Amino acid sequence: LSNRFTHFADRLMAAVDEKNSCVVVGLDPRLDLLPAELCPDPAVAGYYPETAAEFIAEFNRQVIDLVAPYAVAVKPQIAFYEQYGWAGLRAYAETIRRARRAGLLVIGDIKRGDIGTTAEAYAVGHFDHLGADALTVNPYLGSDSLVPFLRMCREKGRGIFVLVKTSNPSSRELQDWPGGGQALYRRVAELVREWGKELRGACGYSAVGAVVGATHPAEAAELRTMLPDCVFLVPGYGAQGATAADCAACFAPDGSGAVVNSARGIIHAYRPGGGQEEVTDWRGAIARAAETMRAELERVRRR
Amino acid sequence: LSNRFTHFADRLMAAVDEKNSCVVVGLDPRLDLLPAELCPDPAVAGYYPETAAEFIAEFNRQVIDLVAPYAVAVKPQIAFYEQYGWAGLRAYAETIRRARRAGLLVIGDIKRGDIGTTAEAYAVGHFDHLGADALTVNPYLGSDSLVPFLRMCREKGRGIFVLVKTSNPSSRELQDWPGGGQALYRRVAELVREWGKELRGACGYSAVGAVVGATHPAEAAELRTMLPDCVFLVPGYGAQGATAADCAACFAPDGSGAVVNSARGIIHAYRPGGGQEEVTDWRGAIARAAETMRAELERVRRR
Repeated sequence: LSNRFTHFADRLMAAVDEKNSCVVVGLDPRLDLLPAELCPDPAVAGYYPETAAEFIAEFNRQVIDLVAPYAVAVKPQIAFYEQYGWAGLRAYAETIRRARRAGLLVIGDIKRGDIGTTAEAYAVGHFDHLGADALTVNPYLGSDSLVPFLRMCREKGRGIFVLVKTSNPSSRELQDWPGGGQALYRRVAELVREWGKELRGACGYSAVGAVVGATHPAEAAELRTMLPDCVFLVPGYGAQGATAADCAACFAPDGSGAVVNSARGIIHAYRPGGGQEEVTDWRGAIARAAETMRAELERVRRR
Repeated sequence: LSNRFTHFADRLMAAVDEKNSCVVVGLDPRLDLLPAELCPDPAVAGYYPETAAEFIAEFNRQVIDLVAPYAVAVKPQIAFYEQYGWAGLRAYAETIRRARRAGLLVIGDIKRGDIGTTAEAYAVGHFDHLGADALTVNPYLGSDSLVPFLRMCREKGRGIFVLVKTSNPSSRELQDWPGGGQALYRRVAELVREWGKELRGACGYSAVGAVVGATHPAEAAELRTMLPDCVFLVPGYGAQGATAADCAACFAPDGSGAVVNSARGIIHAYRPGGGQEEVTDWRGAIARAAETMRAELERVRRR
């Protein structure tokens, strides 16, 4: 399944089976939390985007090797790179290449949503040039904003995860807004089903997935029923407060159909207080955090 | 008003008054439409992102000088740069610097929308490092996704334009979705009013604006009444089919309160057929297109 033109959901579900893991590691590196060994003075580095980007790329190289045995995919959040301008985007591209070489799938967390030729430019840029296997997308502009992404799902074995119910508290403002008796996120879920129905792989899941926050277990259960063919990308585990038990509703009865992301809780596991404290064995802390997350989720998934 | 810490709406409305113009030029350069003089072989250049990005940056330099007398702002659509990776983002940053030196305001068309520290990274990156005066943002994730942007509006004289009713056909799928008797875009408009109410400038308009497509005049009229303190950024004019008359509903009774974007209709005005035909005097065609758009909109605005 190393051929990138293989259906995305087939590649993802095969990785889950092979590695006995549904762990996605969020590569959202924060300069002020890097080990001092890699970044001696974050405040200074912050003024030099090229330096900051190099520190981050080097950190990611090491994180990728540390988590590769335990994770099926990485999910770099592009904002943490884009904030350093072109040098940051170069680090983002390098991170993607490195993760792919380590046998990990790459979900670019870009949450783009735009129309016509703009959507086309995003799809080409992020799938072809930058090389992501899958991307997160925002549905607010509707179907025509997804056309180029869906074509790449069909023709090139790529995937998308549509924002349906996000993990943050304010997600209720629009996503839970009741229309004609049902919340907006259910309307989005109907569209996700429509967009994905012709794009199912051999495993039964579609290349069109959904982002469903672990912080909303009741909504997740409801969406799991509505979207049996849809892989869920689940944020909210760890630093955002959701536990493995909160993720349970995101899985199908057979334990398939969802992957769970954690960023800070893994890549900055050596700073549990979030501060600037001295750290020893940061590499061990990262590997152990990924291994622990895998074990906790496997217990839930195989219940 | 050259101080960037001056309230964004005050800076924008002053520029409109000084230049007798509400024209925003969308800098969405397409390699295959560049003049052959600047890009002899687009198909080849497309394989070399750094070359493509240089061609685009040089084209933008010239476009900016050509339209500066007639426009109040430029709106680079970041997807057209991002598609060329880091080299593209460098061209984007250079374009912003160049436009600011030419006395134009810069609206970064990024349509980002994300949570917590991610939203913070986007706001810092695009306002501080890349240097946009204002940004377009996607509201789907709700208030907490806008907090860092609103802070920069308050503290640093920046602005945002929230996607309310976009210009594309599929915008109806979610944005017109009826909830409790009113379409979703009206719910978003209520939030825009809430987000912007403490951020009004001396001109009376808020730093929190709205994207309202000229392709939906009836909805624009309704939103104009709902949001009297909100500047509208109006896409859809020109290549997307809306006329100056279609934009009329976006202005306040005194002709203020809206700026209108056109991209391809101006920057690629020398290729009205959209093809690869030989072009003569492409510079003249760009300048004339901007001047004509200004004149057409001034007639509507001053009625």
